[in-house]
Amino acid sequence: MAKVIKLGFLGCGNIGGGVYHLLTEMHDEILKRENIDIQIKSALVKSIAEARTDIPKDIMTESADDVLTDPSIDIICEFMGGEQPAASFMQRALENGKTVVTANKMALALNWHKLQAAASAHGAGLYYEASVGGVIPVIRSLTVSLDADEIDQVMGIVNGTTNYILTQMSQQGRSYADVLAEAQKLGLAEPNPTADVEGYDAAYKLSILSSIAFHTRVTYQKIHREGITNISPDDIAYGREMGYTLKLLAIGKRAADSIEVRVHPTFLPNEHPLARVDGSLNAIYIHGRYCQDMMLQGRGAGDKPTASAICGDILYAATHMDNPTVPSFANTAEPDDAITFTDNWVCRYFIRLDAADTPGVLGSVASAFSAKSISIASLLQRPAADGRAQIILITHEASECAVQDALATLNPEIVRVESMIRVES
Amino acid sequence: MAKVIKLGFLGCGNIGGGVYHLLTEMHDEILKRENIDIQIKSALVKSIAEARTDIPKDIMTESADDVLTDPSIDIICEFMGGEQPAASFMQRALENGKTVVTANKMALALNWHKLQAAASAHGAGLYYEASVGGVIPVIRSLTVSLDADEIDQVMGIVNGTTNYILTQMSQQGRSYADVLAEAQKLGLAEPNPTADVEGYDAAYKLSILSSIAFHTRVTYQKIHREGITNISPDDIAYGREMGYTLKLLAIGKRAADSIEVRVHPTFLPNEHPLARVDGSLNAIYIHGRYCQDMMLQGRGAGDKPTASAICGDILYAATHMDNPTVPSFANTAEPDDAITFTDNWVCRYFIRLDAADTPGVLGSVASAFSAKSISIASLLQRPAADGRAQIILITHEASECAVQDALATLNPEIVRVESMIRVES
Repeated sequence: MAKVIKLGFLGCGNIGGGVYHLLTEMHDEILKRENIDIQIKSALVKSIAEARTDIPKDIMTESADDVLTDPSIDIICEFMGGEQPAASFMQRALENGKTVVTANKMALALNWHKLQAAASAHGAGLYYEASVGGVIPVIRSLTVSLDADEIDQVMGIVNGTTNYILTQMSQQGRSYADVLAEAQKLGLAEPNPTADVEGYDAAYKLSILSSIAFHTRVTYQKIHREGITNISPDDIAYGREMGYTLKLLAIGKRAADSIEVRVHPTFLPNEHPLARVDGSLNAIYIHGRYCQDMMLQGRGAGDKPTASAICGDILYAATHMDNPTVPSFANTAEPDDAITFTDNWVCRYFIRLDAADTPGVLGSVASAFSAKSISIASLLQRPAADGRAQIILITHEASECAVQDALATLNPEIVRVESMIRVES
Repeated sequence: MAKVIKLGFLGCGNIGGGVYHLLTEMHDEILKRENIDIQIKSALVKSIAEARTDIPKDIMTESADDVLTDPSIDIICEFMGGEQPAASFMQRALENGKTVVTANKMALALNWHKLQAAASAHGAGLYYEASVGGVIPVIRSLTVSLDADEIDQVMGIVNGTTNYILTQMSQQGRSYADVLAEAQKLGLAEPNPTADVEGYDAAYKLSILSSIAFHTRVTYQKIHREGITNISPDDIAYGREMGYTLKLLAIGKRAADSIEVRVHPTFLPNEHPLARVDGSLNAIYIHGRYCQDMMLQGRGAGDKPTASAICGDILYAATHMDNPTVPSFANTAEPDDAITFTDNWVCRYFIRLDAADTPGVLGSVASAFSAKSISIASLLQRPAADGRAQIILITHEASECAVQDALATLNPEIVRVESMIRVES
């Protein structure tokens, strides 16, 4: 006798529709595999009249209560996006003892401690594999497969929109504005692209990823965040000439009780496995004490890949109603006091300067760096228009503060800092 | 109050030692994360006197019964390698209701149905994440995260020894024998390398991987297997010239109820993500109806990465003693009758011929292929010594039988077939 599991959807747009279709198409196969009869009981939509037509209207409702308080529903699947009302709906569902599956990184990152507390208090499960990296099974890999390991680094390409834009800029030498406009036309970037291009989306994901990787709460507020809007094709071209590829990375590193978490454009050596992850692909590179280096890549967006990850969570939840997965760290509102978050990380730096092409300028640049004990690994100088020169240099490892201090000592009337991009390896 | 979980080791060499050290070094952290106090109760070794000295002698025993019948032991970790006595020891452990964790692909692939039946009959768990791809979480990704999906393809670099050999041959233009000898000296290949270089190891792994990917038993006997011993540096060099990289791949494809499973040297376009997985890295490429394309890569061997995967299994087992993971297919001795296994797959082919350099030879080659309706995608002809020529061609998609038939019609006195290597994309 198959176990019947009833689902309620909060939202039924692109992702909800994808999940509906997967569960319908795979219903009999899932029944055969897991002896579970998945039934979609109801779906909250804004307007039944305006809802998508490929889903039966008779499961749709405009009342959240119909979904959240229905005692026959076992699992609530949240597909609304945005922080509210998604977070408070999930909270209510968990308080009603219902397991929640979500792909909503923003609502989760900002309310995780409350949601997990409600889940634990009411014996419910909270699953979010699709919240980071789409179909890439990075959440389960970190929480289960690598649970005995000590992860010291996660670096991810976790935003497909920015990866598409940087890949196009790199392959075609086009400007940011130009590629963004095209991506918007193709539906690969939102009409208001801020959440993606300014790195907010990546920062929510990094909050989740680094919390589970480092077994301690890393709140969104601790993340240093810079987007890609100031990247010029010149940066990408000079970087390529020096053997580097530009990516928007979400980086988390832990050494003892010190954590650095940052989202910013980053140069990677061309041989780095993340450097080859192009277009709308996502990938997460992981390093740990025992596992050493590994990388998981796949589709970070799209209704079908996202539905695959969500339905993996639904099936796991359905087969573990009495034993839900619980993150193995204290999921508190604020980070553990024992942990220090540093903004003064150490990496290498790519610096592009626009300088007067006069004797002594290169010397003044060199002294500014050496005064802060920063050594330069490679340097390129090119003549530019109007008696100016472009100076591009990559430093050896240096601390963020030292580099910022060195750049601040340059006389902006003679040497203008065009860009400062971190380099990882 | 922490839950105490007692382990018994079968074998305590390189992998067992790695697991011992991980569990010792991470003991307190694991206690904190999962509230589980892992204790290693006993370890079966061949000779206590000759056993490794970095593990306390007082847990060692030379009697399998001490480990298998100890009622205080919850989980048996098998690190013996080889089919027997590992398989019968695991069988006995499962029949005693003990959960088993193993990395032994050979014992598992050949005895899986018996082991799973014993596990299910006695409420025990059977975990084997480290049996394929070392630390790469491919087993859990397929069985859990992708459980709602329909996987139609798995392609893996699952043997580090052969990947190291092919990478060295490719990068340095050296011969197989030469690189093998060096790999043996470095400890990267066994004194008797047959299991690796003839593809047996990869075939055991493919049996496991394709069974869980396709939700049906794929026995080892169904796998077409060819090794790398006949690969010449010429093949690799000509392939590279045409844009391809050579890998020993374990390939499983499913379309409706037809499955093809094969291990053989394979050319991949240089842009394929697996083409860039070099040296001793492992990687598994997965394609499915919903997930689309994904790839997981990491360390396929080594005591630390393997220990990480094994200990992930141990912790999962320890936290799910009442609800062990069960593969979602009928794990029978023989494959399901409804499934057809085909040896007549369709792919592209790289063919290298040594031909008399006389008028009409190229025409005779062309007609041999066109007679079997095989079209040629690219062709290269080069003069060789003694009035001979090398003809290298890559076909469009063709069936295995058609290609074999076409090659059989060539007159070996005029055209000798030097190599026939499948090409995937």
